[in-house]
Amino acid sequence: MNAFYAQSGGVTAAINSSAAGVIEAAREYPDQIGRVFAGRDGILGALTENLIDTSLESPGAIAALRHTPAGAFGSARYKLRGLDENRAEYERLIEVFKAHDIGYFFYNGGGDSADTCLKVSQMAAQMDFPIQAIHIPKTMDNDLPHTDCSPGFGSVAKYTAVSIREAGFDLASMCATSTKVFILEVMGRHAGWTAAAGGLAAEQEGQDPHIILFPEITFDQAAFLARVEACVNTHGYCTIVASEGVRDSAGKFLADAGSTDAFGHTQLGGVAPFLARLIRHELGYKHHYAIADYLMRAARHIASATDLEQAYAVGRAAVEYAVAGKSGIMVTIVREADEPYRWSIGTAPLADIANVEKQMPREYITEDGFHITAAARRYLQPLIAGEDYPTYVDGLPQYVRLQNIAVEKRTGTKFTP
Amino acid sequence: MNAFYAQSGGVTAAINSSAAGVIEAAREYPDQIGRVFAGRDGILGALTENLIDTSLESPGAIAALRHTPAGAFGSARYKLRGLDENRAEYERLIEVFKAHDIGYFFYNGGGDSADTCLKVSQMAAQMDFPIQAIHIPKTMDNDLPHTDCSPGFGSVAKYTAVSIREAGFDLASMCATSTKVFILEVMGRHAGWTAAAGGLAAEQEGQDPHIILFPEITFDQAAFLARVEACVNTHGYCTIVASEGVRDSAGKFLADAGSTDAFGHTQLGGVAPFLARLIRHELGYKHHYAIADYLMRAARHIASATDLEQAYAVGRAAVEYAVAGKSGIMVTIVREADEPYRWSIGTAPLADIANVEKQMPREYITEDGFHITAAARRYLQPLIAGEDYPTYVDGLPQYVRLQNIAVEKRTGTKFTP
Repeated sequence: MNAFYAQSGGVTAAINSSAAGVIEAAREYPDQIGRVFAGRDGILGALTENLIDTSLESPGAIAALRHTPAGAFGSARYKLRGLDENRAEYERLIEVFKAHDIGYFFYNGGGDSADTCLKVSQMAAQMDFPIQAIHIPKTMDNDLPHTDCSPGFGSVAKYTAVSIREAGFDLASMCATSTKVFILEVMGRHAGWTAAAGGLAAEQEGQDPHIILFPEITFDQAAFLARVEACVNTHGYCTIVASEGVRDSAGKFLADAGSTDAFGHTQLGGVAPFLARLIRHELGYKHHYAIADYLMRAARHIASATDLEQAYAVGRAAVEYAVAGKSGIMVTIVREADEPYRWSIGTAPLADIANVEKQMPREYITEDGFHITAAARRYLQPLIAGEDYPTYVDGLPQYVRLQNIAVEKRTGTKFTP
Repeated sequence: MNAFYAQSGGVTAAINSSAAGVIEAAREYPDQIGRVFAGRDGILGALTENLIDTSLESPGAIAALRHTPAGAFGSARYKLRGLDENRAEYERLIEVFKAHDIGYFFYNGGGDSADTCLKVSQMAAQMDFPIQAIHIPKTMDNDLPHTDCSPGFGSVAKYTAVSIREAGFDLASMCATSTKVFILEVMGRHAGWTAAAGGLAAEQEGQDPHIILFPEITFDQAAFLARVEACVNTHGYCTIVASEGVRDSAGKFLADAGSTDAFGHTQLGGVAPFLARLIRHELGYKHHYAIADYLMRAARHIASATDLEQAYAVGRAAVEYAVAGKSGIMVTIVREADEPYRWSIGTAPLADIANVEKQMPREYITEDGFHITAAARRYLQPLIAGEDYPTYVDGLPQYVRLQNIAVEKRTGTKFTP
């Protein structure tokens, strides 16, 4: 039987490392697994029968996926509805899987795709179609339950910590006559894991970042401004990592603070510009801000070696579990020890994963709500450890572009998702 | 005689490499140069007699400056006025320099500081105070004349090219169902060097970035939107590097497009948000944008080895020229050949440097105004070549914090700049 592999949701610097794990491991089990077909643009590739034959890619190209950010086969934001709601989609999946002798379904994504993977495994049971469905965790948001961490997170965590450390050195240099406040806005609308990781840069009291704003902590404008002012008075400047998901006491995103753009539309301005304007208005400090956006999740050049290794391992393990007959599970990362850090691979039933978000524990945030605790550092630190640089030619990282050769269609039918 | 060294203007990932060059070279000429005193916060340190004794720093700490971004002694945005306008400042400088036996003035900065350095050297002549003033070039803006490039630029150039390449892989993965346009806003209000460098990532037609917006090219909204739409139709998505300095046909910065913030103030929104809103409004595409801001100039983790080497070399050379009796010059980088790239060190009279901005030649921009030419690539490519990673501990780059021990004050007088 062949295998189907698809990437789902927002891509990361490490998801292709999982793809390499899947494909390289599958090639080691030729008696059990025929070819690995990747979905072009994720699950859409299965629905539209746009499959990519990864067996036509050289071992070198597949190995190079470990050093290449984003999703080599295309990813998709597409959530399958329940079996009862949209049976046609599941019937189409079966049609395509049958047509291509696909007996393994490896789905690489976050919470939504765990849900899809669960449904595929339920379909297998309900519709009497034998397919082993295994979920490979991936999300920069680190919000998957039952795994110590989610591949993709360690690399954005490292990006955040490195970036705010570097910006802090810049501010410290310039604050006597220039910028006094710097804000780095990071992604992560629902949980503060990414913002928290910025706190790792502060190895001692007073180091950057001075303030972290978490979605978990209601924004207290007066306390925040007092803290900024105290920082500037103490250190000469203030560095801030702000999650895009920070909300006010009414539950409204600060990023949505109503301003009106040149077209007369209300604009979502981002949390960093909001904070910058607030600080200028109330305290008068010169400020700068950066918005990391996709740069942080695409930054393979500064990815965490631990993250990449784990991403690869969960991909390999998915294949090994499949070959061993498992289905309906997510591969997990199990922390064995904080220091020295040790981890192993485990599994969790998909029914326990789908649509459950792992929140950041309150005890990871200091009582005042503005920084991370020692417990958070113990958890986060190993995840950013290690560097794994891509190859550079002429000063630029060399990322592989696969041939992505299409598998000939066999169903003879079209399906519009 | 002792030497005075100061950092000026916006800091870079490479300016501390120049500091290391100055201090290490000076230590090799103990018969000519006593101690190197650094100005705390640039030239302000000289005016306020806040000097740092670099001789108290270990060789290891000075060597570590090569791996540390920003300004280890503090930099300042402070421009000395002309001798006729503010003689008191120059008299104060002489007072401090005399009090500390300072016979060498090494000033590390951009165009404004070249002007200051020139004035100090003129003062030396006019006020009969013997001081050798040598300017060490530094600016991420690459706008200093008479030098092939400016240390600090190669590293932001590399950051820009790496970042847009990575973001392009992200967009290519996601565009089928999600974001279609990504804009990276880069610093550089007056010249498009930094934006141009992003073009290096596109080694072949159609690679990222698809569009570059330069301050040198008047923004043509219709042509821009048509190009974005064509890109999305051809490639499925569109990546854009936009200089913060892009202007419309009335000469107004796009970044200043009048919108009103939550406090009722007109806000300078940035060019990326403006373009994003324009694209959404006119074309309806889902978009994302990043604003690199200080991250790009502080990003020592992805600095150009060529840039760091040149920054170090101009620091060393300044000392060697001083020891050889030179004054009133800027150290320059002379390009000997494009490929293989060869360069050497030269000098230019400060009178030819001060307040002259090197513009990007029009022939570096394609006729349509949206990308760089082969000539630009030939110029830019060597400047981003090579990697020079800092040491990492626990996943974070180790940047040195000097002791910065103050030199005892001797003048007995205070001066408020």
